[in-house]
Amino acid sequence: MESEPISNDQKQQQQQEPMEWAPTAWAHLSAVRNQSPLIQCITNYVSMDLVANTLLSAGASPAMLHSVEEIPDFTPHIHALYINVGTLSPDWLPAMKVAAELASKSGKPWVLDPVAAGASGFRLKACLELVGLKPTIIRGNASEIIALSNASVGPTKGVDSSHESMDAVDAAKRLAEAGGNIVAVSGVVDIITDGKRIVGVHNGVPMMQKITATGCSVTALIAAFVAVDPSHAFEATASALSVFGIAGEMGMDIAKGPASLRIHMIDSLYGLDQAAMLSRVHIRSLP
Amino acid sequence: MESEPISNDQKQQQQQEPMEWAPTAWAHLSAVRNQSPLIQCITNYVSMDLVANTLLSAGASPAMLHSVEEIPDFTPHIHALYINVGTLSPDWLPAMKVAAELASKSGKPWVLDPVAAGASGFRLKACLELVGLKPTIIRGNASEIIALSNASVGPTKGVDSSHESMDAVDAAKRLAEAGGNIVAVSGVVDIITDGKRIVGVHNGVPMMQKITATGCSVTALIAAFVAVDPSHAFEATASALSVFGIAGEMGMDIAKGPASLRIHMIDSLYGLDQAAMLSRVHIRSLP
Amino acid sequence: MESEPISNDQKQQQQQEPMEWAPTAWAHLSAVRNQSPLIQCITNYVSMDLVANTLLSAGASPAMLHSVEEIPDFTPHIHALYINVGTLSPDWLPAMKVAAELASKSGKPWVLDPVAAGASGFRLKACLELVGLKPTIIRGNASEIIALSNASVGPTKGVDSSHESMDAVDAAKRLAEAGGNIVAVSGVVDIITDGKRIVGVHNGVPMMQKITATGCSVTALIAAFVAVDPSHAFEATASALSVFGIAGEMGMDIAKGPASLRIHMIDSLYGLDQAAMLSRVHIRSLP
Repeated sequence: MESEPISNDQKQQQQQEPMEWAPTAWAHLSAVRNQSPLIQCITNYVSMDLVANTLLSAGASPAMLHSVEEIPDFTPHIHALYINVGTLSPDWLPAMKVAAELASKSGKPWVLDPVAAGASGFRLKACLELVGLKPTIIRGNASEIIALSNASVGPTKGVDSSHESMDAVDAAKRLAEAGGNIVAVSGVVDIITDGKRIVGVHNGVPMMQKITATGCSVTALIAAFVAVDPSHAFEATASALSVFGIAGEMGMDIAKGPASLRIHMIDSLYGLDQAAMLSRVHIRSLP
Repeated sequence: MESEPISNDQKQQQQQEPMEWAPTAWAHLSAVRNQSPLIQCITNYVSMDLVANTLLSAGASPAMLHSVEEIPDFTPHIHALYINVGTLSPDWLPAMKVAAELASKSGKPWVLDPVAAGASGFRLKACLELVGLKPTIIRGNASEIIALSNASVGPTKGVDSSHESMDAVDAAKRLAEAGGNIVAVSGVVDIITDGKRIVGVHNGVPMMQKITATGCSVTALIAAFVAVDPSHAFEATASALSVFGIAGEMGMDIAKGPASLRIHMIDSLYGLDQAAMLSRVHIRSLP
Repeated sequence: MESEPISNDQKQQQQQEPMEWAPTAWAHLSAVRNQSPLIQCITNYVSMDLVANTLLSAGASPAMLHSVEEIPDFTPHIHALYINVGTLSPDWLPAMKVAAELASKSGKPWVLDPVAAGASGFRLKACLELVGLKPTIIRGNASEIIALSNASVGPTKGVDSSHESMDAVDAAKRLAEAGGNIVAVSGVVDIITDGKRIVGVHNGVPMMQKITATGCSVTALIAAFVAVDPSHAFEATASALSVFGIAGEMGMDIAKGPASLRIHMIDSLYGLDQAAMLSRVHIRSLP
């Protein structure tokens, strides 16, 4: 029978994928909708609007508080913390550190988005200090993860300047292993690793890169997903990246350009149902 | 005849509503469109885009100036001031106070949005200092108004943590009476009181809460409405809340989620005509 | 034949327009799409989202870095700098100056948007200091350009308070001549001058003024256009103003109000093709 090899292939694939990713991702989104976790966001000015609307559309509760005076009172009540260094300045850094420390000490998950980590010495130093405060998850693009990994763990093999996410796999693994974090690298295929396991998320559309703050927003979504499942940060990260990518794919069906894609993507995230999730989640183990 | 009781009811309702709210709300919106009042906004980073676009769509002129160095030169030229403490930090507070004092002294109306008033000691203290500078109008959600009222006037009867606007009526009345302000509490029904009178605004749709900064934006709209009718702050407040809610209702007719609702809501605010207003304004006195 | 005068007119107009503006504008947009120039933006909070999305939709790479600590490392790598004083405060000014100086010294084009230049003594002084650092291009509305010109070059003939762009022609010419800049004045007709030549851009629709940060965004687009053609700042400026106006015109065809116009305008900018450009560019020399 000609169908046998296919069956064998499917079997083999199932053996390689012990996990059922689609139900996992759906379970995370459902939990966010049901529990509406409180996510403190200390993020850049450019992204605040889209980050807040992404979290609201997913069912979470965003709170943009960045003042060091407020953190001791407020941060103990949150379910996860999101720190993004996009428009970093020296006066914002202390609050980031105090909030990260407080989250780490109290066992709350926190997520770091090291935007443009290598853009300046000041920024790289700040990112390394934040990495030292043990983020549960770090999500960046290939250049950012390579810059962080090289600076904190030591240089990896030479890479060219236009990094694709696959080039950053080695850097991500070493960074994750050294810090005990989950590290995610965004790209055509998103890579998630804990230093040993690696999965790739194949959802999303290229035009999402033409919308400012989509990277910031998916990192905030990761924070919401890990908030409702803090003991499975790896699964939460992959699920959030897949869900956001699916929202982009569905938005793309009716978008006429990046601005309408942004609108339809958020609408799709809000309306995403189980059937769409189960048919669209595309997460695969990498060798 | 069976219709009599209905007629009586209608009569009774009309006696309870000496005011014609729909023409009042329309008159306010028309005046904003005609006079294009200049509204200085010292508001949080998350809300700036939607606040400015809300004011522009309503016909007002927003001005986002927050530097204490500029207030003595600029604030005397405005028609109303809007202060929102959403992303408060110590370096923004002095300008808020100086601008509020200047507005109060010169008889210009000013409106306070005490976002997350109870989130920290620092924030509550800042809000109380601003309340002490006699805002014409305070608009918050139930938790915020209760936090402010308890801290400034003293604790009210016990309320549970998930406050609905009706629970905050007592707190709002006491806060309004103590400060001589108008106090508005947003919720499924928006409550407006001057300490004696109370009206409820029944416009709006639940999905507006899934869009960040809608609360901030309607408060800015209140500032624009009171700017063109400073001697009727109570009526201006109820009218603005109704108009914004109607824009949301009309936007909801074609929205597919929170992001498209935001777009259609602003478009509807821009295009709102007298016929739609007269048929949709839903403001009622509360006992 | 009655058609002769028309032919003569056309001939005359062609003689007055040695330049083929439509192909020039198209060439600039194409170069931005191909080269994706890196544009550092130090801009106001209100505008950051739309500025970044405008640049991305045009094919450029925006970078919102405003910290003085980062400028020595980062600014040498950019292709153009954009400075906008919209939400100016004293702590942002040093970085603006350092970045502008660095750009000027290294021959990188930089563009100034002197938002509300006359709103306060502090702001006017800051704008004059920035003008002293030799921006390649200054773009403002009539009031802003008149305020700057009067303060830096000396008072011009009396103008009334509601300045239209044509009223500011004299002020723009004097400002441009004194500083050796290109000066652009936005209005129903946009005016561009180098002190000698003057052209008017007739693209755009009035409703664009009902969207916050459209002025900021077109100035950022000017920065992207001059980044790919630094030796023709005059042509780059007129081209960018025309392209942005055309995006607004095309968006207006399907917009239902200012919020949907904003979406369709950005979508149109992203999709703008040569045929649309060649038929719509409307730039004319002024006497």
